Amino acid sequence: MYRRELLGAGSIDKISYTSSIIDDSEIFKYVIITLIAHVNELERISVINSDVAGRIRDALRDIWRGGYEQGKLTGYEDVHEYIEAELIRRLGSIGGWIGIGRSRNDHVTTAIRLRLRRALLDLMLTTLRLREVALNKAVEGHDKVIIGSTHRQPAQVTTLGHYMLYLDDLTRDFLNELMHVFELVNKSPLGSGPLAGTMVGIDRFREAKEMGFDGVVDNTIYATGSRYFIISAASIIVNYLVEIGRFINNLEMWLMPQLSYVSADPSHLATSSIMPHKRNPATLEVFRARIGEAVGHLMAMYSILRPVESGYQLDLQELTRHLWSIIRIASEGLSMFTDFISSVKVNDEGVKESLNKYVVTAAEYAEVVAMREGRPFRDVYNEVARGLRSGTRVGLDVNNALMKPVHGSSNPSLITEHATARLNEVRELTGRVNSIINKLDEIENKLLNT
Amino acid sequence: MYRRELLGAGSIDKISYTSSIIDDSEIFKYVIITLIAHVNELERISVINSDVAGRIRDALRDIWRGGYEQGKLTGYEDVHEYIEAELIRRLGSIGGWIGIGRSRNDHVTTAIRLRLRRALLDLMLTTLRLREVALNKAVEGHDKVIIGSTHRQPAQVTTLGHYMLYLDDLTRDFLNELMHVFELVNKSPLGSGPLAGTMVGIDRFREAKEMGFDGVVDNTIYATGSRYFIISAASIIVNYLVEIGRFINNLEMWLMPQLSYVSADPSHLATSSIMPHKRNPATLEVFRARIGEAVGHLMAMYSILRPVESGYQLDLQELTRHLWSIIRIASEGLSMFTDFISSVKVNDEGVKESLNKYVVTAAEYAEVVAMREGRPFRDVYNEVARGLRSGTRVGLDVNNALMKPVHGSSNPSLITEHATARLNEVRELTGRVNSIINKLDEIENKLLNT
Amino acid sequence: MYRRELLGAGSIDKISYTSSIIDDSEIFKYVIITLIAHVNELERISVINSDVAGRIRDALRDIWRGGYEQGKLTGYEDVHEYIEAELIRRLGSIGGWIGIGRSRNDHVTTAIRLRLRRALLDLMLTTLRLREVALNKAVEGHDKVIIGSTHRQPAQVTTLGHYMLYLDDLTRDFLNELMHVFELVNKSPLGSGPLAGTMVGIDRFREAKEMGFDGVVDNTIYATGSRYFIISAASIIVNYLVEIGRFINNLEMWLMPQLSYVSADPSHLATSSIMPHKRNPATLEVFRARIGEAVGHLMAMYSILRPVESGYQLDLQELTRHLWSIIRIASEGLSMFTDFISSVKVNDEGVKESLNKYVVTAAEYAEVVAMREGRPFRDVYNEVARGLRSGTRVGLDVNNALMKPVHGSSNPSLITEHATARLNEVRELTGRVNSIINKLDEIENKLLNT
Amino acid sequence: MYRRELLGAGSIDKISYTSSIIDDSEIFKYVIITLIAHVNELERISVINSDVAGRIRDALRDIWRGGYEQGKLTGYEDVHEYIEAELIRRLGSIGGWIGIGRSRNDHVTTAIRLRLRRALLDLMLTTLRLREVALNKAVEGHDKVIIGSTHRQPAQVTTLGHYMLYLDDLTRDFLNELMHVFELVNKSPLGSGPLAGTMVGIDRFREAKEMGFDGVVDNTIYATGSRYFIISAASIIVNYLVEIGRFINNLEMWLMPQLSYVSADPSHLATSSIMPHKRNPATLEVFRARIGEAVGHLMAMYSILRPVESGYQLDLQELTRHLWSIIRIASEGLSMFTDFISSVKVNDEGVKESLNKYVVTAAEYAEVVAMREGRPFRDVYNEVARGLRSGTRVGLDVNNALMKPVHGSSNPSLITEHATARLNEVRELTGRVNSIINKLDEIENKLLNT
Repeated sequence: MYRRELLGAGSIDKISYTSSIIDDSEIFKYVIITLIAHVNELERISVINSDVAGRIRDALRDIWRGGYEQGKLTGYEDVHEYIEAELIRRLGSIGGWIGIGRSRNDHVTTAIRLRLRRALLDLMLTTLRLREVALNKAVEGHDKVIIGSTHRQPAQVTTLGHYMLYLDDLTRDFLNELMHVFELVNKSPLGSGPLAGTMVGIDRFREAKEMGFDGVVDNTIYATGSRYFIISAASIIVNYLVEIGRFINNLEMWLMPQLSYVSADPSHLATSSIMPHKRNPATLEVFRARIGEAVGHLMAMYSILRPVESGYQLDLQELTRHLWSIIRIASEGLSMFTDFISSVKVNDEGVKESLNKYVVTAAEYAEVVAMREGRPFRDVYNEVARGLRSGTRVGLDVNNALMKPVHGSSNPSLITEHATARLNEVRELTGRVNSIINKLDEIENKLLNT
Repeated sequence: MYRRELLGAGSIDKISYTSSIIDDSEIFKYVIITLIAHVNELERISVINSDVAGRIRDALRDIWRGGYEQGKLTGYEDVHEYIEAELIRRLGSIGGWIGIGRSRNDHVTTAIRLRLRRALLDLMLTTLRLREVALNKAVEGHDKVIIGSTHRQPAQVTTLGHYMLYLDDLTRDFLNELMHVFELVNKSPLGSGPLAGTMVGIDRFREAKEMGFDGVVDNTIYATGSRYFIISAASIIVNYLVEIGRFINNLEMWLMPQLSYVSADPSHLATSSIMPHKRNPATLEVFRARIGEAVGHLMAMYSILRPVESGYQLDLQELTRHLWSIIRIASEGLSMFTDFISSVKVNDEGVKESLNKYVVTAAEYAEVVAMREGRPFRDVYNEVARGLRSGTRVGLDVNNALMKPVHGSSNPSLITEHATARLNEVRELTGRVNSIINKLDEIENKLLNT
Repeated sequence: MYRRELLGAGSIDKISYTSSIIDDSEIFKYVIITLIAHVNELERISVINSDVAGRIRDALRDIWRGGYEQGKLTGYEDVHEYIEAELIRRLGSIGGWIGIGRSRNDHVTTAIRLRLRRALLDLMLTTLRLREVALNKAVEGHDKVIIGSTHRQPAQVTTLGHYMLYLDDLTRDFLNELMHVFELVNKSPLGSGPLAGTMVGIDRFREAKEMGFDGVVDNTIYATGSRYFIISAASIIVNYLVEIGRFINNLEMWLMPQLSYVSADPSHLATSSIMPHKRNPATLEVFRARIGEAVGHLMAMYSILRPVESGYQLDLQELTRHLWSIIRIASEGLSMFTDFISSVKVNDEGVKESLNKYVVTAAEYAEVVAMREGRPFRDVYNEVARGLRSGTRVGLDVNNALMKPVHGSSNPSLITEHATARLNEVRELTGRVNSIINKLDEIENKLLNT
Repeated sequence: MYRRELLGAGSIDKISYTSSIIDDSEIFKYVIITLIAHVNELERISVINSDVAGRIRDALRDIWRGGYEQGKLTGYEDVHEYIEAELIRRLGSIGGWIGIGRSRNDHVTTAIRLRLRRALLDLMLTTLRLREVALNKAVEGHDKVIIGSTHRQPAQVTTLGHYMLYLDDLTRDFLNELMHVFELVNKSPLGSGPLAGTMVGIDRFREAKEMGFDGVVDNTIYATGSRYFIISAASIIVNYLVEIGRFINNLEMWLMPQLSYVSADPSHLATSSIMPHKRNPATLEVFRARIGEAVGHLMAMYSILRPVESGYQLDLQELTRHLWSIIRIASEGLSMFTDFISSVKVNDEGVKESLNKYVVTAAEYAEVVAMREGRPFRDVYNEVARGLRSGTRVGLDVNNALMKPVHGSSNPSLITEHATARLNEVRELTGRVNSIINKLDEIENKLLNT
């Protein structure tokens, strides 16, 4: 539609190649919301009269209710062109008012921010659910012995509860990052036009408030051309996933039949078409691989951005799908993972067998002896090392070794205490996130009139 | 189906999460081909009799003709389980013979190699077509002046033809890499079982030959677990695309109205919804961005592989889609790009304006003066630099500057000569690739009985 | 030293291969600080008496004053082994007390956090300096016309000041991220032992306070094995640099002699050894390339982490250098870039020439006409597009087009106002950061007794 | 030196920032070789007379013998400027003849190719040495049982020899890639000038031959600006390393004391400063991490290249160090790894214990039963699965299970046979590579007159 007068008709294969119309299904709803907010503002500042505004709003809501059907979309560059064409088809040339005081540049980034803020809130709930499961498992497993490893070698005895609190600590830090990046994301670029602003006297703060944003992205070049908010959100998620992937490596190790430290629900396992004895940790493997994909998506974003200048380029259109992919990987994978964690059980027999075979409390023994006998630690350490080399079993009793006095350690009673306090925190935060979601639901439903 | 006796029924959400059934549409045809070759071999070595073999073959071909419909596929882990279930559904328990002497590990990698070798051949044709277009454009533009740049600054005068031969040189090297990696890919892993081989006396060389492979992947651990052939093919393509992306940066620069060195067909351009003067190089931007995505896909592959041991893990299942994505990006993008190149025209006015404004033949001038006057080059260079600094225009005549005596230079007559020879090479290679394709078509059609 | 009794002497080439002793020069100071805090705590809880504690402290400070000389370091696995060996060499076996209640796992991550928090503060000052320069340049260039571009095509008129505020907005968001990640980093892992804690009754909160940390990393597995804080800090920096790299693309474009929109100090340029007319933007190119390297460093980190389980593995040792590299790239590059920005001057002639050649105010014209005449925007737009196609110059006067009423736009008076307010913010923040630096200096100097 | 007349003196900090003088130590020797070949050609075509040529050659060789000392290098942009300045310092203005008929663009890429072709040949020897060690270990361990795993779960019995042949197969394919990429690399760009060629009538083929190249890079834009040969070489190495990293995952697993399938020389292990029982696979961990770094280096290269157009930009200067890093990682790491492999011993007890605990020959059993009894495989498989679920041990005898009839399998006698044939191949290839090295040594020494 836009190209006809300047560039002529265009060719279907090239429009298909450059079109974002399929990807735009991700933001269809939020494009409509943005357009309605835009129309409201145009009406408020009398660029269009109330009658025109009302008819356009109605048509937009109608289009929204009609759904996003790919059949009708062929030949459009993107959702924005499609919607404007629909408006003109339904309302005649007054539909063409929608194009004033805006650009696809400011509108698409507004819609992305609307969708992303929602995705971040959903992800907060997902991680809060994981925390809840991990913390309950921490209480349940506060004294269930697991052999902690470093260098994929047995290191110290600890408990499943201790590992669950590790998972909670990591997830808590991630949650904190999510909440922080939410503030970066939840600002309105609307009213910035293509790059330098618009001649139409839009009140950008009023528009922002109407859509539930906490303020505006000030500079219009930054608002329209930058994707800093996208890569910030994306990399926060990827960073967490990569660390979760490391814990999957632990779980996969603990599930090896040679160790059998834990078991999981069989629904998380798969077998072989030829080897009937196989019990493969299928969901963990797929999640771990998808985390690897998430790293790739982030790299794709960086690669896309490298040659692009500060202003909008079509390259940026190709970037957004990687954001949604990362979010999907996180959201699906973390749900699977949470389910897995909830089903983990320590297999005491497996752990005991390893403990019988291999000393893992030599450090604790050396510390205790050094303190008791007042001998420099390294001397005791060397003595113990010689003993182990010659095959003597030198180590502290496992239960004693667990009872470390320091904050955050394997000590079972500290674990229970800590987990309980954290469960309260999780409850409080869940309430807070839900109330933000409810508030935004209300705002969006009002604009959509649903 | 496989899991039932050992692990019980499984849950739909977890099977969906871990299933490759949707991605497997990429290899459906080649899985069928592999299975038919497998059945043929089982028959030849009398593990199954001809009647059973015939019925399984017929059913497999029937399934193939029925197409790969996603509706029926829910609940299966992958295409292999689906097909075996279909066989048993159609033939009763004799369908269960399909599972002997094989594993999904060797079969999936066979199918991937079959599909990939074909994709590589198609890509060879795509690049040969690009070469043909570039070489014809080189002849057409052998004396069409373009200002060559380094550091995004005007460097030397040259011609469109010279740039087209640069494109051909790069693409020729890529083609050579494609042909080389084809040899790595076109080997059969079939008969390797899950990892260590099978008790069934399969003649792996005979199977390989039947499917048109040039030999076998010897070691069965390597054959089933390694993805070296995939990342090798993928990175060869990505490397080329990244270099092509650099030339897109040139084209985008030359299209700037401030330069206007070239024009392209308007179908490759798009405009703005708000700025009616915009002529954005849409196809180039999208291709360049997709090249960035291809880098991301490669990074995804590396990230997926990092935690995986040498044997097959489900992580590998997630890897393959990135290969197909890279191939799709290359194939679609190079076609667009070829079309773009074919439509490029030098705009003499734009070039002339720059030449009037800015001296770009100072190097040639300094060389000629140094040789003519027998003065050390650096002395002449410094003299010229001082002149330029003070605003004097010191440079060789453009036409003289083009006529460089060295092989591979901007010299128009060398360009024509070179391009003509290369066009013959392209014709010869196209014939060769087509004849391989025809041979493989024949082989595959015979197995599929189509 | 550690290996002798259990594993025997070791071979020099393998110890060299696996040693971090050279990289550890980055954290030498902070390892000493950590050890002194550790000794203080051992003394407070009477694991060692005051005499021993005093002698070890003195020796540690002495080692620190002696500097980190690579000559003596050969044969050590890392700085920790080297220092303990030095202590024993100087003090005899009582030096071996240093090994109790700790592990290299908790100590190295403490030292990394100490170094990193300082680097983050320094980076805050670097970015505040960039903001100051950009904001002053915004005031200076509030009405200096630049043609803003999208798709590397002229889009709208705007000003250098507007671009400077874009730079400030981006940098401000980055600064905010830096301040946020500082909180994640500035927590103490000390007292966590190798993984599960220690038998020694260390008060981790007291230690944390003594080193100026804002609390502890609770869980000891998380404290010792996770590198979430590192990749979080790293990716925040990389994200910003990637966006800065995009603005470098603008600057490089504006410096093209065909555009000549801006000039920069010649010290930022380099020329050719053969083409005396070249003026290459050397510092920008190197910084842009190094930003590409920073992306590579981040990917290296992810790749390193992928196969590693949650506990410490030697792989993690190799990760840290990439953090320092990213910080160095940011710190050096941003200083160069700030200097570049301070020297940028708009070249009115260059801009004017483009404005004469090419219409860039068609959007503003169409908006104004649509509002004035009450005609649907798209109708006016199409009319303008037809005009432009046929070669008519249809556009608003440049000065009018700049005067956009919306917040954050190219409007010169809004730019001055905005920049002035931001300069106050920068001054206030600079004071705040400096006071944190001073406080931490005091704390560290007290521990080092300097 | 170059900048003085056009741009003025320059500032030390900016020249330091943009200088490649330190990195250039990697190519110093090859820059000298390139310059001597260049001078020879200038003499042959009478651009300089024999006296001047001789004096420049002598001075160049003198500079080469003097070594590359960083002290004197400050203030130079790169090795080329430094050498020319040295020539002029020693010979007066006739030293300035060195600048004619060339550019740093063609000279630096020539030097890189010379250095890289040598590195590739060295790497061929490194991998041939690994193959030799692996093949000898294959013979030694042809019947030493190891439990092969997929999904980190026990899969099938096989032997160390089988795994060694897997290692050989992979390495052999890599070697093949190295030999192929050597052909891409070993072509001369010399005589291409900055981009479009030179006015000096250089015979590029004669120069190429003099330096031992197998021909020229035809197009001068491609020859000077492209880095396709670098990323091709780099990614071939990275691809192999990533696959080697996967086998390190196996080795690390086999070294777990809970499995104890293999042991390695203690010099490859390290212990803990606090846990005297630790035996950490230090060299493997570091190599695996460095492989992760190699991936990062490759991504750095792609990221650097993305915004760069086809002509040389200073960004490319920053790219090359990543090539050398990747090569260093490969060369050092593969030597360590080869040493590790040579020290690997199977621990029969560890393997036996696992075999007693867990059935891994159920697939072989099911295949044998199905064939023997003529029952569809899936029926037998299901029966076995039910048995295993209920705790019955259903599996083939281990020795029978090893004796698979198929090519490339775990069958011990096939392993010995295969390894022996491959050892001959390795010997033959080693001779071939050494003879190329000797030939190039001769050529380079002749130019350097050493």
